[in-house]
Amino acid sequence: MIIQKEITLSSKPRGFHLITNEILDNISEIKNMEVGLMNILIKHTSASLTINEDADPLVRKDFENYFNKFIPEGEDYYTHTGEGDDDMPAHLKTSVLGCSLNIPIKKGQLNLGTWQGIYLCEHRNRGGNRNIVITIIN
Amino acid sequence: MIIQKEITLSSKPRGFHLITNEILDNISEIKNMEVGLMNILIKHTSASLTINEDADPLVRKDFENYFNKFIPEGEDYYTHTGEGDDDMPAHLKTSVLGCSLNIPIKKGQLNLGTWQGIYLCEHRNRGGNRNIVITIIN
Amino acid sequence: MIIQKEITLSSKPRGFHLITNEILDNISEIKNMEVGLMNILIKHTSASLTINEDADPLVRKDFENYFNKFIPEGEDYYTHTGEGDDDMPAHLKTSVLGCSLNIPIKKGQLNLGTWQGIYLCEHRNRGGNRNIVITIIN
Repeated sequence: MIIQKEITLSSKPRGFHLITNEILDNISEIKNMEVGLMNILIKHTSASLTINEDADPLVRKDFENYFNKFIPEGEDYYTHTGEGDDDMPAHLKTSVLGCSLNIPIKKGQLNLGTWQGIYLCEHRNRGGNRNIVITIIN
Repeated sequence: MIIQKEITLSSKPRGFHLITNEILDNISEIKNMEVGLMNILIKHTSASLTINEDADPLVRKDFENYFNKFIPEGEDYYTHTGEGDDDMPAHLKTSVLGCSLNIPIKKGQLNLGTWQGIYLCEHRNRGGNRNIVITIIN
Repeated sequence: MIIQKEITLSSKPRGFHLITNEILDNISEIKNMEVGLMNILIKHTSASLTINEDADPLVRKDFENYFNKFIPEGEDYYTHTGEGDDDMPAHLKTSVLGCSLNIPIKKGQLNLGTWQGIYLCEHRNRGGNRNIVITIIN
């Protein structure tokens, strides 16, 4: 059986945001599943999804600082510049981090490690709402 | 139901190439699917797959420039050098970008965002043909 | 049909390790499968999984050297520093490389390319045992 739904995440400031609970609020269908697999895909090319440490907010701050340093803005090797200095770096960050995640389901819950949470990585200064497709196989 | 097939993409020059239509040409099976999930995996370690902006070709040019700068050739910390200067950076780029994608299917189409396309990322100077496994669950 | 199991990989030194055989030893269930898809997810935020060249061990050595250079330790832009200099870079490396893989199954085997193997990427100095969830759809 496959379930698919689309949700819209409200606009978030540039940076890395923990969205595990926002995702869980939208997948009550998994409650009775013994095992399964969930795919979530963000339908954009300037915001991404990743899984990382969900305890200390400083981790997410350091993610923003690191990626700004290693995928910098305003470099002269960028030619796709018409949408602003934050645009081309946002495309690159999105492909480095990825636009989809696959997470196992077990006994009605996401089967993640103790410290793993889902991040929405907003790479634009004003990204606006972000649409996500959730596909669940069980 | 699971369908699996293998296709060969013709040799492409080093760089980032939009292959959405080449993939679509090979998955007519999804036309009648209400919902599903497609995995595509490239069976190589020096070319990769990613999803990014499919409108402006300059984005793909900037991808090539960026990755050449941040995963440079000819550095003295490389020890796997027997297959040419472009080889070890190609392995690294492949793992940073990834060798597989998972894309939701809805109402007979890939359920991607308006600006999302599938890129073949050819990291070798002469990569030759590239083989891809397509697995569709519905 | 979906099968899910969890395995523990024994502690490995910091670096990139080929674990294809350790995974295969734990998925004898695929022997009779015509086609399928396997997801493996590492339940940690400072170790990751990737697919790359499985022949020359120097490739894995170069991975360690490259990632140490481009995701360096001890930089003054890190604020999450309480768990040691290797901790925040380990989180970043994990998100760049990813915590899960999807691999097609065909005729009782993983349908990978000739040179593709599964790497456990241990980013901590003393990472300890690592837990992995394997989910197989067929």
